Amino acid sequence: MKVRVAVNGFGTIGKRVADAVARQSDLELVGVAKTRASFEARRAVERGYPLYVAGSGDPQRFADAGLPVAGRLPDLLGRADVVIDAAPEDVGRENRALYQAAGVRAVYQGGEAADVAEASFSALANFDAGRGKRSLRVVSCNTTGIARAASVLARWGVERWDVTLVRRAADPAESKRGPINGIVPTFEMPSHHGPDVRTILPDLPIATTAVVVPTTLMHVHVNHVRLRRPPASAAEVVAAFRATPRFLVFAPWEGVDGTPQVMEFARDRAGERGTASADVMENVLWERGVRLTGSELYFFQAIHQESIVVPENVDALRAMFELAPNKDVSIAATDRSLGIAHA
Amino acid sequence: MKVRVAVNGFGTIGKRVADAVARQSDLELVGVAKTRASFEARRAVERGYPLYVAGSGDPQRFADAGLPVAGRLPDLLGRADVVIDAAPEDVGRENRALYQAAGVRAVYQGGEAADVAEASFSALANFDAGRGKRSLRVVSCNTTGIARAASVLARWGVERWDVTLVRRAADPAESKRGPINGIVPTFEMPSHHGPDVRTILPDLPIATTAVVVPTTLMHVHVNHVRLRRPPASAAEVVAAFRATPRFLVFAPWEGVDGTPQVMEFARDRAGERGTASADVMENVLWERGVRLTGSELYFFQAIHQESIVVPENVDALRAMFELAPNKDVSIAATDRSLGIAHA
Amino acid sequence: MKVRVAVNGFGTIGKRVADAVARQSDLELVGVAKTRASFEARRAVERGYPLYVAGSGDPQRFADAGLPVAGRLPDLLGRADVVIDAAPEDVGRENRALYQAAGVRAVYQGGEAADVAEASFSALANFDAGRGKRSLRVVSCNTTGIARAASVLARWGVERWDVTLVRRAADPAESKRGPINGIVPTFEMPSHHGPDVRTILPDLPIATTAVVVPTTLMHVHVNHVRLRRPPASAAEVVAAFRATPRFLVFAPWEGVDGTPQVMEFARDRAGERGTASADVMENVLWERGVRLTGSELYFFQAIHQESIVVPENVDALRAMFELAPNKDVSIAATDRSLGIAHA
Amino acid sequence: MKVRVAVNGFGTIGKRVADAVARQSDLELVGVAKTRASFEARRAVERGYPLYVAGSGDPQRFADAGLPVAGRLPDLLGRADVVIDAAPEDVGRENRALYQAAGVRAVYQGGEAADVAEASFSALANFDAGRGKRSLRVVSCNTTGIARAASVLARWGVERWDVTLVRRAADPAESKRGPINGIVPTFEMPSHHGPDVRTILPDLPIATTAVVVPTTLMHVHVNHVRLRRPPASAAEVVAAFRATPRFLVFAPWEGVDGTPQVMEFARDRAGERGTASADVMENVLWERGVRLTGSELYFFQAIHQESIVVPENVDALRAMFELAPNKDVSIAATDRSLGIAHA
Repeated sequence: MKVRVAVNGFGTIGKRVADAVARQSDLELVGVAKTRASFEARRAVERGYPLYVAGSGDPQRFADAGLPVAGRLPDLLGRADVVIDAAPEDVGRENRALYQAAGVRAVYQGGEAADVAEASFSALANFDAGRGKRSLRVVSCNTTGIARAASVLARWGVERWDVTLVRRAADPAESKRGPINGIVPTFEMPSHHGPDVRTILPDLPIATTAVVVPTTLMHVHVNHVRLRRPPASAAEVVAAFRATPRFLVFAPWEGVDGTPQVMEFARDRAGERGTASADVMENVLWERGVRLTGSELYFFQAIHQESIVVPENVDALRAMFELAPNKDVSIAATDRSLGIAHA
Repeated sequence: MKVRVAVNGFGTIGKRVADAVARQSDLELVGVAKTRASFEARRAVERGYPLYVAGSGDPQRFADAGLPVAGRLPDLLGRADVVIDAAPEDVGRENRALYQAAGVRAVYQGGEAADVAEASFSALANFDAGRGKRSLRVVSCNTTGIARAASVLARWGVERWDVTLVRRAADPAESKRGPINGIVPTFEMPSHHGPDVRTILPDLPIATTAVVVPTTLMHVHVNHVRLRRPPASAAEVVAAFRATPRFLVFAPWEGVDGTPQVMEFARDRAGERGTASADVMENVLWERGVRLTGSELYFFQAIHQESIVVPENVDALRAMFELAPNKDVSIAATDRSLGIAHA
Repeated sequence: MKVRVAVNGFGTIGKRVADAVARQSDLELVGVAKTRASFEARRAVERGYPLYVAGSGDPQRFADAGLPVAGRLPDLLGRADVVIDAAPEDVGRENRALYQAAGVRAVYQGGEAADVAEASFSALANFDAGRGKRSLRVVSCNTTGIARAASVLARWGVERWDVTLVRRAADPAESKRGPINGIVPTFEMPSHHGPDVRTILPDLPIATTAVVVPTTLMHVHVNHVRLRRPPASAAEVVAAFRATPRFLVFAPWEGVDGTPQVMEFARDRAGERGTASADVMENVLWERGVRLTGSELYFFQAIHQESIVVPENVDALRAMFELAPNKDVSIAATDRSLGIAHA
Repeated sequence: MKVRVAVNGFGTIGKRVADAVARQSDLELVGVAKTRASFEARRAVERGYPLYVAGSGDPQRFADAGLPVAGRLPDLLGRADVVIDAAPEDVGRENRALYQAAGVRAVYQGGEAADVAEASFSALANFDAGRGKRSLRVVSCNTTGIARAASVLARWGVERWDVTLVRRAADPAESKRGPINGIVPTFEMPSHHGPDVRTILPDLPIATTAVVVPTTLMHVHVNHVRLRRPPASAAEVVAAFRATPRFLVFAPWEGVDGTPQVMEFARDRAGERGTASADVMENVLWERGVRLTGSELYFFQAIHQESIVVPENVDALRAMFELAPNKDVSIAATDRSLGIAHA
């Protein structure tokens, strides 16, 4: 019997997670909730997802738009075993009482503070911490990217890790956010991303700083790591990243010079091997962008803020409901379903 | 027996046309030619398209990248009935002698001058002009957008049409082109787009001007048309656009405020109803962006420069080889195969 | 005896108008009012402008920042004959009662509705309409640009004028406004700019449409005018613009391809001939961007949204207080003081 | 008797250096050389700088533009004691033979390799190294910014310094350079900036990495320094930067959130206290952007790529010709003349 999953919020994260859930053989998408009629709500209907009205939404607006709704959020919760909360930042916490009242488990996103849930989660790093929990929090896109990389670096022992996060200022469809021309430092130093990683990897000696730049495509992390037991060569590092699920490493001959070509690659890939979306759910590295000098490792990684947490939400459900014996099995199933499994 | 199609050039247009050809039941994609190994070349191999080395390309580079090649461009031409030339601007003309020597027919793109081919082509506007031709030129993205709209407006009689083309400065993956911040007027006034439309619709009283702006997503046309026999209302205009293939009209409640949301819609749609790509091959209009004052019609349309000519290339092949009795049959077949057919 | 001028609001417009007023021999800047301490408030102090606290501003905040204040806005109004309202859009109207209570005259900006003042004003177009008025409204940047051009075109008779306004999305320092990548149509068609021009030139047969694009530098107007009594050549049109105050026309050899180079020119000019600012208070045209075909005139003009209304505010004061016998005398005095007078 | 200075190249750097030289009482600007007529060449004439034709430039083009020229580059060199080479990258090296043949000393820019000159130079860091030299190389904008900061940090002992350079992709007037939307990593890791700083400070334990982002305004450096003898507080660090020439530190209340407001500040400042330009020749820091945790210091600094090397070029001349007894005297004179001296 499948675990019945509701998705509350159908924006950037919610719509992707709903699509991913719908592709799993051990999960059933019982519906999605949305506040307003929009082209995204219409698409939920076209995909056959039962549509519910969330929060203060007005069902009449949906009716006027010709979009049939199946009820309100509480109705949806009544049909689910678990809800994925994909509401805007800080609204997840407000929703918590609602979920508890409905007796459903909940997966929150990284925009909420860590104490919203019993544990923070990232599949490669701490899958087992999610087992049997009634609530989990999938960490944010940047934290997910760091936690994944930490899983690779652990074999060499991280003595000290500095990351500069060069953050995209807005998602592609957020047309009211700027800056159009300029760089805005994040004056929280070190930034909150380091402590957030430590909700998953408590002892990681990491310090993060951040700036915001006028692009919509991806974040880029500039990493400098001192390793305790360094590998023999950068090639060994590249091979380790290549061998790990949810990493994509471009070779020099591929002509991928930066995030514009990474997203072009993603658009080309859509539809191949079952990859329906134009997303990049993997951490993206470049062979040319990995350099080892003694025990000092430098590498760039690009993070697709819109989609990187999508497979993590699926794995979080598997961990909660103990649907997989271990992380490797869960990750492999998720990645195959999303078309991002390694060959 | 299927018409055997080669695609020479596998960049922005070529890769999309190849995918489209591969989806047609009356066409066979016999191979694609590319100058350099790249992530796009790798994808051709992964999709199972026979890969040939174009122009001055070095086969060893492909071998070094692990990409098997089936020969050089002349070998490909030897296996084809027709070639779609998707080479960079002005290279198409240079390739013409090669195509003629190989005895294959050819479809050129709008970057070439009109006299590269026997006729210029746009399916809605002049499908029949393509019948039996040995060479055709599919007009450029902006010209295609205008020619399509002209097919709708014709019923009311166009007395005078002014278009300001607000052009995207670069495609998403062209990361070396600017400007980053600024507007650049096109000092050719009226611009070449008007005369280019008249290669298809010789009598259209149109004048176009253009500026280039720092975006990668879509062009936007600002149209002002004086009509001879105006319709009763803007709603009638909207209905006419909605009823025409290759037009997509957003309703106010959909929340599509500009090109960022149009492309978001396209990414969401990828994978639905067989629409594998995140492209928008339709002219995009907004109900709110159509206004009629007496005989004066104002409307905006957005044009996805990367993909709008893709279905036109397919129809050009059908016209050339007389694979369809008329434009309606050809367009319907093409649009169904690409997932953009009206319901 | 000089007219005593207060400036209420010290943002993009207010700070420039204050600087301009300070340079006039017949006006005295008695102070500026600002809501919050900031680098701009500090600069007012450094320039020696008496600083007053506007609206709900807290004097303690200024004290904490080490910025001496001379009182609150009502104190400033008590020392002035006239106030230039440079408050944010719609706040000007709220301020009106305050100004009337203080018995001062007022000049409002174009963000306010036309009925905020006795008349709308643009120096070249209707200087005399401002004579002796107790309140005036200087029209917005785009309307000012159109009204000025209309003053040149009038000699040939305007039969019909279509303008597409390609608008900058944010000012350079407005780092929270987008879009970063995309074009947003203005769904008011024709846009409000046409009716706004007619508050000054009631019979002008103009229709305007607008799109917003991701740049911070300047607006660009794409103009198409049908003339009743067309001149002999485009050169005659260029000469007429060149001979008119507040027009700047670039020659082809100057290498000014778009708004980035126009603003570069402005930065270079700062400090020359008394032009202290890096602004472009003139309408900017290009010789290459003027084309005449029979009675059809096409031309581009670029409008520096931050500064173009600055000299108009000065002239509005001269008209109100009858400090100049006619517009030519006022404009010449203003332009000399600002370093933008023709040789 | 003044040292006679020629400036070869009148683009972004050359025009600013020429203006700065013209403001010095111990230097005489004997002329500038430029390849092409342009708005910038016209401005040289308007400022009264003798204009010479550089390189392969055609004097007839200048004549056609109405710009009087005084000869060719060799003529200019014949009238000078020293030339500032502000030619495009790598052209400086080609010019070297010309300068040597003319018997003039030369100052090169940081785009040239270090061995173009006898020594590399940055005033705060190694003024005395320039004394009496016949050729000097002023290091590039980013290297200058780092070298200046190093001069402040030296008092606490730098054990290790990591810098991520978030680089602007193009200057404001370079309208053909991208990317428009995306981040491009610099795959040279560590980047050349570290070794370049060591041409001045040979023992500095610094490692730099870089990304390019779509903005034109300023670079931002994200710094992480481990100090040997850390100060007591971040406030002590801020005070040290504030007390050093060519540093500008914004307080929290000033409302400067990022580079857009820094450049707004610069435009406002133009004309004040003799600061004719809208440039920021100082390293820019933020109080909020300095954080000390034990011996770990984090700070952001913004670097105005167009102008930061301008005062350095002036000081290089003073060092070469021993016009000042020490760096403090030279720097103070330069900064006063440019309006950037501390109060």
